[in-house]
Amino acid sequence: MTIAALVFDAYGTLYDVQSMLAKAEPLCPGKGELVTQLWRLKQLEYTWLRSLLQEYEDFWEVTRAALDFALRAAGVEPEDTVRTPLMESYLHLDPHPEAREALAALGGRKLAMLSNGTPRMLSELLANSGLDQWIETALSVDAVRAYKPHPSCYALVESALGVAKSEVLFVSSNSFDVVGAKTFGFRVAWIRRDAGGAAPTLYGMLRGRAEELGHAPDHTIPALTDLPALL
Amino acid sequence: MTIAALVFDAYGTLYDVQSMLAKAEPLCPGKGELVTQLWRLKQLEYTWLRSLLQEYEDFWEVTRAALDFALRAAGVEPEDTVRTPLMESYLHLDPHPEAREALAALGGRKLAMLSNGTPRMLSELLANSGLDQWIETALSVDAVRAYKPHPSCYALVESALGVAKSEVLFVSSNSFDVVGAKTFGFRVAWIRRDAGGAAPTLYGMLRGRAEELGHAPDHTIPALTDLPALL
Repeated sequence: MTIAALVFDAYGTLYDVQSMLAKAEPLCPGKGELVTQLWRLKQLEYTWLRSLLQEYEDFWEVTRAALDFALRAAGVEPEDTVRTPLMESYLHLDPHPEAREALAALGGRKLAMLSNGTPRMLSELLANSGLDQWIETALSVDAVRAYKPHPSCYALVESALGVAKSEVLFVSSNSFDVVGAKTFGFRVAWIRRDAGGAAPTLYGMLRGRAEELGHAPDHTIPALTDLPALL
Repeated sequence: MTIAALVFDAYGTLYDVQSMLAKAEPLCPGKGELVTQLWRLKQLEYTWLRSLLQEYEDFWEVTRAALDFALRAAGVEPEDTVRTPLMESYLHLDPHPEAREALAALGGRKLAMLSNGTPRMLSELLANSGLDQWIETALSVDAVRAYKPHPSCYALVESALGVAKSEVLFVSSNSFDVVGAKTFGFRVAWIRRDAGGAAPTLYGMLRGRAEELGHAPDHTIPALTDLPALL
């Protein structure tokens, strides 16, 4: 196959959304993991629900609303002393450990990111992590006021990068995003990171498996560093 | 206020979706609760994802796919000996204990049901439970090939019942459905059943609280039998 561009999902794929656990635990003692999981689950739900309700709000607002929900559900009052540092952490997420090595090994190819995040969230994330060294284009679904897996999100790639959908390898760890990208017509690599033998949580069971939605990825690999071998 | 019709959600509101636990536990020993919760969470996710993907499949198919996901996630092979009786249970859900008394007390008013379920699922459910004695009209979102909370679902009510949206009291225990109905323009009663002091589960935390989506119900009541006092 000829791949003219690799397009990466951000949250969960290049960046570890669970990396904020280190910040959440001291702010919500004994409840850091619960808050982190509820936050992520509700954040995704709100992107889907707001799309269906036809009441788009941007991802910063969706993320804040989901955080308030998660804090209240965990019995923590969503005061600014808790909310502000947790929201800030979304601009400083750690890249997954192998991300830099993987992107460096793909150097010379057209590399982009397509994310639910707002333009500001994505540019800060790329700058703060230094991944802007390799990722030249950050596409935000905010331009179409819809969230993944709505097809209009994936349609941003072709015009922005000047490539045909069949020449795109889309890379995501999120199984619903894999389905969306595949339905749209990209080639798709699903990053399925091993849970490392830890006891599965309800969160892990909900989000860590292939969806039963009828669209399988072209490739399933355990890490971003397995991408070069696919090309 | 003048209420010309009461429109009920089915799954979770009139009918107890957790009532299949009694069937799930012997079929999936030690995993009945996990399967039941994953099944319901994934079923809702698939209604939202399929709506966004613009790949509608009806609720029977969505429910089956979600069951396969839930069984596999719980480490149970989705064989027909397990799948068939669990799917059948969706046609024989128990009404919530107070449903019959509540509907009887509302007698003489226009009572309808608006549900994600297919026409066949809804007619069997009503017949098997005897609630068709009070519920005269069952509206399925299948007519518009979209799922709640898409506005087109709620728009089915006005033409089918010949009432204005401002004259409808919509009744649901599902907080996303409350938001959808309220956004559309119905008056809304949220049935918020007490968890009864049981330790909250991740499922309960995700689904049992008001959403942070900016549309509050007009009424929050703990049981269907509190409806007559609102009229």
